[in-house]
Amino acid sequence: MTISLIPVQGMPEIHPGDDLGRLIAERTELRDGDVVVVTQKVVSKAEGRLIQVDPDDPLSHKAVVEQEAVRILRRRGDLIMTETSHGFVCANSGVDLSNMERGWAALLPLDPDRSARRIRDSLRARAAVAVGVVVSDTFGRTWRVGVTDVAIGTAGVAAVVDLRGGVDGLGRVLEVTQVCVADELASAAELVMGKSAGVPAAVVRGVDPAWLRESSVRTEVVRPYREDLFR
Amino acid sequence: MTISLIPVQGMPEIHPGDDLGRLIAERTELRDGDVVVVTQKVVSKAEGRLIQVDPDDPLSHKAVVEQEAVRILRRRGDLIMTETSHGFVCANSGVDLSNMERGWAALLPLDPDRSARRIRDSLRARAAVAVGVVVSDTFGRTWRVGVTDVAIGTAGVAAVVDLRGGVDGLGRVLEVTQVCVADELASAAELVMGKSAGVPAAVVRGVDPAWLRESSVRTEVVRPYREDLFR
Repeated sequence: MTISLIPVQGMPEIHPGDDLGRLIAERTELRDGDVVVVTQKVVSKAEGRLIQVDPDDPLSHKAVVEQEAVRILRRRGDLIMTETSHGFVCANSGVDLSNMERGWAALLPLDPDRSARRIRDSLRARAAVAVGVVVSDTFGRTWRVGVTDVAIGTAGVAAVVDLRGGVDGLGRVLEVTQVCVADELASAAELVMGKSAGVPAAVVRGVDPAWLRESSVRTEVVRPYREDLFR
Repeated sequence: MTISLIPVQGMPEIHPGDDLGRLIAERTELRDGDVVVVTQKVVSKAEGRLIQVDPDDPLSHKAVVEQEAVRILRRRGDLIMTETSHGFVCANSGVDLSNMERGWAALLPLDPDRSARRIRDSLRARAAVAVGVVVSDTFGRTWRVGVTDVAIGTAGVAAVVDLRGGVDGLGRVLEVTQVCVADELASAAELVMGKSAGVPAAVVRGVDPAWLRESSVRTEVVRPYREDLFR
């Protein structure tokens, strides 16, 4: 019943073309049913989703942010709240300069669910285990200070677990409870990764086996525009 | 470096006046540095934050929701998005009928940070350990489908860890990174509690000792109205 959060230590600096599944499988003993959480930054680096920016010209970064947005929702100071092509609503279209070489920015993966599937397939091929993969990124929240890690892509692990029609602890039928376990897995993993520790992946061991199924953040987690109350 | 998420098993049904700290300390071996996450529902029950509603009249529940709101932000069908007296923006003012006896609803604790301190003090007195406490609740998110657990109160564990001015993995000074570890702890704990498993508390073991400090969700996490972009 206990879940363990295990950081993957000793990962090298990641470059375009690197096989993240291989690098992770070489550094940790995976077991069937593990969920591997990998941060967007290394996924973007491995996929070559990098772009040059002028480090002395803030407008250069801003132009990339606007190029990556399908809709600009709010501006305040240097912050631009945008909607990305994936349907994510986040700061600066997810374009980010931290942990990057000076003069380079990382863009979000084009299809983070596909990124997760690619890592999952590589892990499966090398470690001969059935694992789930979550690609995580760090997002702010509308009403709350501080950032938390959320899932931007999943493979082999439920994004949302639907407890609609389940039974609560007193035996009554529950109303709607759709739990976004993918986001909770991403947040949990962040606790052992940290922003400055150079740990870009972690293993979550001991999750409910029922959660291990095909899934997609794009189709399960992104709130459709027509259902949105605040955009 | 590994963090363990340990459910507290065998908790009884909670009634007004129950000492949650004692009930938890009797069922788990706590260690210095543990963080105990307790769900709002049992905190509200222990504090007698209960109100009668007419189970056959939806307007009865709605009246309580409106009474608990300081501001009504959006309505859609049965859903009312409100701002509570604590400054939380959530569905139905956090008033909730699940896992409640028919005809009763649970209100949010009046001061969830104080609730967390009370549980922390009780745990400290009984188990002679220095622990942090997070009171968690289940909130939806503006742009994402599904709910996740977040912190509504904290004691003895950082709500937000400020990595502003820290150094990233490449030795460069980071821009602003304020991580809401309290929300990440709540989400992590939810993974071993589940909505229907009757586990209202969990222990998070192995967190960074630097996070164990006085804190408050009210002052650190609630985004001030003047900084809000979407209300």
